[in-house]
Amino acid sequence: MLKYNVSHIDGQARRGQLETAHGVINTPAFMPVGTVATVKTQTPEMVAETGAEILLGNTYHLMLGGRAELIEKAGGLHKFMNWNKPILTDSGGFQVMSLSDLSKTSEKGVEFKSHLDGGEKHMLTPERSIEIQHKLDSNITMQMDECIRLPASVSEMRRAMELSIRWAKRSKEAFIDREGYGIFGIVQGGLDEKLRLESALKLTEIGFDGYAIGGLAVGEPQHEMFETLDFTCPALPVDKPRYLMGVGTPLDILGAVERGVDMFDCVMPTRSGRTAKAFTSYGEMNMRNAKYKEDFSALDPECNCMACKNYSRAYLAHLIRANEILGAILLTQHNLYFYQTLMRGIRNAIETGTFQKFKKEFIKKYSQTK
Amino acid sequence: MLKYNVSHIDGQARRGQLETAHGVINTPAFMPVGTVATVKTQTPEMVAETGAEILLGNTYHLMLGGRAELIEKAGGLHKFMNWNKPILTDSGGFQVMSLSDLSKTSEKGVEFKSHLDGGEKHMLTPERSIEIQHKLDSNITMQMDECIRLPASVSEMRRAMELSIRWAKRSKEAFIDREGYGIFGIVQGGLDEKLRLESALKLTEIGFDGYAIGGLAVGEPQHEMFETLDFTCPALPVDKPRYLMGVGTPLDILGAVERGVDMFDCVMPTRSGRTAKAFTSYGEMNMRNAKYKEDFSALDPECNCMACKNYSRAYLAHLIRANEILGAILLTQHNLYFYQTLMRGIRNAIETGTFQKFKKEFIKKYSQTK
Repeated sequence: MLKYNVSHIDGQARRGQLETAHGVINTPAFMPVGTVATVKTQTPEMVAETGAEILLGNTYHLMLGGRAELIEKAGGLHKFMNWNKPILTDSGGFQVMSLSDLSKTSEKGVEFKSHLDGGEKHMLTPERSIEIQHKLDSNITMQMDECIRLPASVSEMRRAMELSIRWAKRSKEAFIDREGYGIFGIVQGGLDEKLRLESALKLTEIGFDGYAIGGLAVGEPQHEMFETLDFTCPALPVDKPRYLMGVGTPLDILGAVERGVDMFDCVMPTRSGRTAKAFTSYGEMNMRNAKYKEDFSALDPECNCMACKNYSRAYLAHLIRANEILGAILLTQHNLYFYQTLMRGIRNAIETGTFQKFKKEFIKKYSQTK
Repeated sequence: MLKYNVSHIDGQARRGQLETAHGVINTPAFMPVGTVATVKTQTPEMVAETGAEILLGNTYHLMLGGRAELIEKAGGLHKFMNWNKPILTDSGGFQVMSLSDLSKTSEKGVEFKSHLDGGEKHMLTPERSIEIQHKLDSNITMQMDECIRLPASVSEMRRAMELSIRWAKRSKEAFIDREGYGIFGIVQGGLDEKLRLESALKLTEIGFDGYAIGGLAVGEPQHEMFETLDFTCPALPVDKPRYLMGVGTPLDILGAVERGVDMFDCVMPTRSGRTAKAFTSYGEMNMRNAKYKEDFSALDPECNCMACKNYSRAYLAHLIRANEILGAILLTQHNLYFYQTLMRGIRNAIETGTFQKFKKEFIKKYSQTK
C-alpha cells in the first residue's frame, strides 16, 4: 500500500519517490533517528529545516512503560511529537536483544526484562511488534527479525535467518493494510551469499512494500559490507525500496547508493552532535581540538545551515567547553543538515547521470580536513 | 549616553523606552540571563521570538579563561553569540564573591581564585570590571559594588555601601562614553532606609545613565523587599531607568513595577525550564506530577508560544521523564515567553492606565493552578 517510483537510474544507483499517507520521501533518503519520540536536542521544525522527509522511531523505547498506549491515545506518534511527515519504526527486536536486561529468544518471540519498566517480564512477538507499530501509526512498519552478533557460525546464521523468515510471514499476516502505510521485510544471512540470496528470495515470495538489509554495520570492515550489498541488492525486486539499516558514515552511504540502496538511518549525525564531532565538506572535525578556540570562520564554509551561517567555530568550541546545551543543539543541527545536503547531492547527481563524478569529488574533498 | 523616555505613568508605575546602540528596550522590561554567552537551551532566534529586547550576561563567567579577550577578538558579545539586540552585563563582583573558591575584598577590589581557571589568582577591581565589560561591548555596564550577605549589622551594611560608592566613582571614571552605551550605578544599604537614601543620593550626585537596586531578592520576605522599594524608588531620578537586580517571580515583578521599577533580570524562567517547572497563567506547574502524564491539553491554553501551540502536557511530561533535552528546550522557551507576555501585559496596562486592574486579574488567575 506504498507507491514507489524509480524515476532515474545511474549505474546501480537509483533515484525514486516513495509515497506515504504523510507525504513523499525522495530517495536515496537518510532518516534521522528519533529514538524516544524526539530527535535528540532538536525541535521537529529544526529537523524539517535540514530537509529530512522521514524519521525513524525505536519501537523498543516507544513501547516501554505504557508509552505505545499513551501515544495511541495522543493520536499516533506524528501528533504526539508534532512531526507531520512520514515515520518508519523498527520492530523493537534488535534493541530488545541488545539493550534489555535479559532476553531469551524462542520460536514464539523474545522474552525480556527492562529496568526502564520496573523489571517486569515482557514478551515481544512478531504480532505484538506489529500491533505496537500500528498503535504508533508508523508509515513504514518493519517485520520482527533476529539479528545475531557476528562472528557466528554459518549454521547459527542459517538458524537465525530461517527464524526471521518465519517471523516475516507472521509479521506480514499481523500487519493491517491501509493506504499510504506499508511493511518492509528484512534480509538476513550475515556475510554469507547463499544465505542472503535465500533470505531475499523467500521474503520476495512473501511480498513486502520494501526490503531492508539487516545485520550489517555491526563492526565488519566496510569492504565486507559492500561485498554483501554487491550480491544482495540484485536479488531484491527492482520496483521496491531498499533500506540498509543502521548505516552509516557519508562514505558508507555513497558506496551503498552506488550498489542500489535507497534508504538509510543512523545515529551518527545526532550522537556526534552531542560529542563535539562535526561532519563537514572537508571531513570530520573534533570541536574540542585546541586549534578551533580562536577560529572565527564558519564550521563548514560551504554549508547553509543555521549553525554555519550564524556562528563561528570559536563560539561552538566555547559552548562545548562550557558544557552548554546550545553546543549540542547547533552541532546536531549542522550534522543533520550535512547528511541531508549529501543526500540532495546524491539525488541530483543520479538525476543528471553524474553519480560517479559526484562521489569522486565528495570523497576527495572529504579526505582533507581543514 | 543612553536616552530614556518615560512615555506613560500609572500611579508609580512607568512605561518607557530606553535607546541603545543596538535598539530600543521597552520598559518595564525583563532580561533573560545569558550567563556564559548563551541563554541556556535556547538559540538567540528562540529568545528573540519570546519578545525579549535585551539579555543579561555575567561578567564573571565571561572573563574566566581568557574569554573576555576571545569575545573582544570576535567583535564583542553580540557578534560572538549572534544576538544583535541590547546586552547588559553585571560587574562580576557579586559572582566573584559568591561563586569563586576564595575571595578577599579590600579597598582596591576583590582577589579571588577560580577552579574554572586552573586555580590562578585574579584581582577584580572596578577598573578591570569596566574594562572587561567594554571588551564585551556591553550596552549597559554595571558599576562594581559589594553585595554582602544578609542578615548583617547596620555598621557592616554601612561599610559595604560606602565602599560601593567609592567603587561607583572609580567605575564611572573608568567607563568610556560612547553613543548608545551607558553605565548604571547600584544602590546598596540592605533593608535600612537611611543607608538606601544616602546611597541613592551619592550615586545621583556622581550621575549615572540608570540606577540599579542591589542587595535585594537574597532571601528576605517579599514584603521587606517591597518596603525597601517603597522608600528607595522615590529617591532615584525620575528621568532615568531603575533596575531591580535578580528579581524575580511574576508577583515580585508586579509589585516592583507598581513601586516604580523599570527593569528586571532573573534566572527563574530559564532555570525552572531545566527542572520541569512551568510558569503559566494559572500558576506554577511541576511537570513531573503524575497528573500530566495523560493530559493532552496545552501547557498553558492562553499562551501562544511554540511549546503551547504544538505540544501537549503529556508530551512535555514524557520528554522530562525520559531526560530528553527537548523537554528543557520547550519548557525554557515557554517560561521565557510567559515572562515576556507578562511584561507586554504590564506595558499595555500602564499605557491605558489600567495597571491596578491588570495586576489584580493576573494575581487572581495565577493563584488557581489548573
